Amino acid sequence: MTIELSGAMLLGAEAVTGTEASFQAINPATNASLEPAYATASKAQVEQACALAQAAFPIYRETSLEQRAAFLEACAEEIEAIGDALIERAMQETGLPRARLEGERGRTTGQLRLFAEVVREGSWLEARIDPARPDRKPLPRSDLRQRHIGLGPVAVFGASNFPLAFSVAGGDTASALAAGCPVVVKAHNAHPGTSEYVGKALQRAVKRSGLPEGVFSLVFGAGNLAGTTLVADPRIKAVGFTGSRGGGLALMQVAAARREPIPVYAEMSSINPVYLLPAALAQRAEALGKAFIGSLSMGSGQFCTNPGLILALDSPALDAFEAAAVEAIAQVDAGVMLTPGIASAYQKGVDAQAGHARVKVLGRGKPSSEPNRCQAGLFSVTAAEFLADEALQAEIFGSASTLIRCQTEDELLALTAALEGQLTATLHLDPADEALAAKLLPELELKAGRILVNGWPTGVEVCHAMVHGGPFPATSDSRTTSVGTLAIKRFLRPVCYQDLPAALLPEAIADGNPLQIWRRTDGQLGKQ
Amino acid sequence: MTIELSGAMLLGAEAVTGTEASFQAINPATNASLEPAYATASKAQVEQACALAQAAFPIYRETSLEQRAAFLEACAEEIEAIGDALIERAMQETGLPRARLEGERGRTTGQLRLFAEVVREGSWLEARIDPARPDRKPLPRSDLRQRHIGLGPVAVFGASNFPLAFSVAGGDTASALAAGCPVVVKAHNAHPGTSEYVGKALQRAVKRSGLPEGVFSLVFGAGNLAGTTLVADPRIKAVGFTGSRGGGLALMQVAAARREPIPVYAEMSSINPVYLLPAALAQRAEALGKAFIGSLSMGSGQFCTNPGLILALDSPALDAFEAAAVEAIAQVDAGVMLTPGIASAYQKGVDAQAGHARVKVLGRGKPSSEPNRCQAGLFSVTAAEFLADEALQAEIFGSASTLIRCQTEDELLALTAALEGQLTATLHLDPADEALAAKLLPELELKAGRILVNGWPTGVEVCHAMVHGGPFPATSDSRTTSVGTLAIKRFLRPVCYQDLPAALLPEAIADGNPLQIWRRTDGQLGKQ
Repeated sequence: MTIELSGAMLLGAEAVTGTEASFQAINPATNASLEPAYATASKAQVEQACALAQAAFPIYRETSLEQRAAFLEACAEEIEAIGDALIERAMQETGLPRARLEGERGRTTGQLRLFAEVVREGSWLEARIDPARPDRKPLPRSDLRQRHIGLGPVAVFGASNFPLAFSVAGGDTASALAAGCPVVVKAHNAHPGTSEYVGKALQRAVKRSGLPEGVFSLVFGAGNLAGTTLVADPRIKAVGFTGSRGGGLALMQVAAARREPIPVYAEMSSINPVYLLPAALAQRAEALGKAFIGSLSMGSGQFCTNPGLILALDSPALDAFEAAAVEAIAQVDAGVMLTPGIASAYQKGVDAQAGHARVKVLGRGKPSSEPNRCQAGLFSVTAAEFLADEALQAEIFGSASTLIRCQTEDELLALTAALEGQLTATLHLDPADEALAAKLLPELELKAGRILVNGWPTGVEVCHAMVHGGPFPATSDSRTTSVGTLAIKRFLRPVCYQDLPAALLPEAIADGNPLQIWRRTDGQLGKQ
Repeated sequence: MTIELSGAMLLGAEAVTGTEASFQAINPATNASLEPAYATASKAQVEQACALAQAAFPIYRETSLEQRAAFLEACAEEIEAIGDALIERAMQETGLPRARLEGERGRTTGQLRLFAEVVREGSWLEARIDPARPDRKPLPRSDLRQRHIGLGPVAVFGASNFPLAFSVAGGDTASALAAGCPVVVKAHNAHPGTSEYVGKALQRAVKRSGLPEGVFSLVFGAGNLAGTTLVADPRIKAVGFTGSRGGGLALMQVAAARREPIPVYAEMSSINPVYLLPAALAQRAEALGKAFIGSLSMGSGQFCTNPGLILALDSPALDAFEAAAVEAIAQVDAGVMLTPGIASAYQKGVDAQAGHARVKVLGRGKPSSEPNRCQAGLFSVTAAEFLADEALQAEIFGSASTLIRCQTEDELLALTAALEGQLTATLHLDPADEALAAKLLPELELKAGRILVNGWPTGVEVCHAMVHGGPFPATSDSRTTSVGTLAIKRFLRPVCYQDLPAALLPEAIADGNPLQIWRRTDGQLGKQ
């Protein structure tokens, strides 16, 4: 299949050129502009996408489990059918290497297929039946049944750092579509061509699945107009976002100021503390130092789960860890960052860290005179200094991390209690460390969505048990996850049906369990 | 058991007198003040309650399923042990009759016992296990497990209209305690004595269960200081509220303005449309008219689910319904309302409705010269007028309702689409009405949390399938319910554990399923 990029947005089945200011993608490796130009959607064009989504919703939310699952699989197939043009374009727009993008494409299509399985399995409906008890005293009980339905059209914002897996057809889109919600995507400006390719794939999947066109639309926009219009539109009922703390907070404010406030699922900011416990550190300080720099520098550190904070008790082994890390970071080539804006924000963040009176520069990666390169940085502060200045907790997006030496276990625990919410917390431990780990765990559970042992936080498995979420400011809503099958629950709400005649009952809660799904009858799970 | 009311708040195990302005309950039937005086908690006292709750949380959230369930049952037993003094005091403070309050006490203790069952059953943990796949290519998969934990200390605001079931030990408290969250209750000023009785019962249950004292505290407060301080406190992680739209919106704003925003579950405002479909109306217009007034006037209409809007197609049968309703309402005695404030707000709302240029007064209940009485009111407007003035959608808390005659099915559907979010929507129908009902249902599902057929919305069963919730402004969060067992999910968040050694894994997700709960392994439900 050869598809020309047109620079047009996708309003349902149509390709439409925006009427506001246009912009082009930039190859961050060279700063060269990439054709074509993408014009910003006008307010009316964004509203048209929302109107199409609203018109599609009544039909789409009542598709059969099989039809909806097959549609998600069609989305995956159509993305694969784009072929290498997608990878080539994504490489140009993001500076990410081929292997990473091929892997990310597999993750994206795998995620769509996993949600197809989830849809077919049907537990997401959370069907509950409390049968009537006409003879109950003093009052009879009505027949009461519950299922979950989609919230309505969902706005999804593509993320810069995963141009496929957290973008047009990423986890937010897949889970919203699985929940029965039409999606309007606001493409990230850093990869409009990649977005157009994937958007057209979803548009084809909608068509070939015989669904109403408004199930999917894609708008482009420089500046904030298109995104703000989208979130403020009364037809939009929820928002998925992955990006900066400032961006997420701005969307939360728009959503809260609506006449009808709506949920915003914003994944924003995390420094992902890594604890090196004493016995583990004594056993393998050097190996940990090298592995840490490997995790820190992967993808120029442009992961939400990048290990930005290392915590350990002071010891000779920690000296050895530090020495190994400093040696390893010196060998780190300056990788290209995703956008000029991200590169300059990184530079600014690292300069501020290096210039901070209380911060010591332990090591830097190789410099580069090429544009938009990330020179890795490793810093240290004392626990007391970290506790005294909350600016030191701010995320620096890129390969920058800070080591904190604690003098006592109490200091380590106090520092943990003072941390903001995180996506992850990591413990490196040996069996002899388990007593200390058991003290840390209860605090870490309150701080992070995922706790991992003897690994590195970069690398987020798409599965049933994953939580890619956590307390504020890691996300705007700790009650959920943006990766993994639990993410579908973000876009659902319960409806109760009391004494409905059989002819009017939805299939999920009909007598005889025609869908053969798990249901809760008088509180007991079963397939009756 | 004889317990003297002291006027003191309960800070954990202590009874402490507030240091700010004091107030007394008022018997709304007579306007007489009731002893003792209750002094408002100071900012420092509210903060102490929060500090105690935070200190209790690490221990309370890790109580065994059996211990937590037994505690909830102990709460129920201790409420029963108060005996008739509780009912007598509640009658004085609310004007509600004995039978209603005895029934509400049964509902309150039944609710606590139902949540004890939910806790023991263990599905609320949503345990998920994705076992490691060390041989997977290209990358091995880690061992990933997920459970849900409590959000942290919860602030609960007692409601005026259910002094037991939606108050100190009501549904919000029961579900938060079931989720493992300590609770700080802000008592409603209308029934402080009832609140003190129930608070002391919970205090005794905490003590006899060997739990940390901060699991439960109760504060009193005139004005907004205590409540605002509570919601703004950084140790509070969620809020449960039932009350007015203004009150709920104010708490939402306080919660959103925090450094760490938190979820607010506010159940606020609903007019609960009732549809009389043509065949049903033709069959039983008079009976429906009488039954409607019965539902409208029960408890002086002081229910969140009071039928405040009647919608039907114009017909001679509708004339018969109206005549029967007008005749029935004329016989309605003026019942005492919960508080002087509620009575005067009702009077103001009814006066505005009666004085509205486009509103016709169809009938009124019996007047009364006694204080704080509710003279029922039935009004009508045309569909066009209702659509043109959104003030006509505002809830009038009390026995007031408005009838709308639609000329066509399209008008009925347009009016439905224009409704705000509701707790309930009711259809009266016969088999011949099912085609019209099938057109209305998809719209009603988007407007209401519960749809009922051939009944009346007052009367909310506490069970597994109940949804007492709905789109804004019925509640602040349509994704959940404040009545029924699903309510526990409001106070939980998921945590993922990656590659934890067996010694550190929580029991819910340990190998061999020691709790024998339902768990999802590689996505499949089972008890393995």
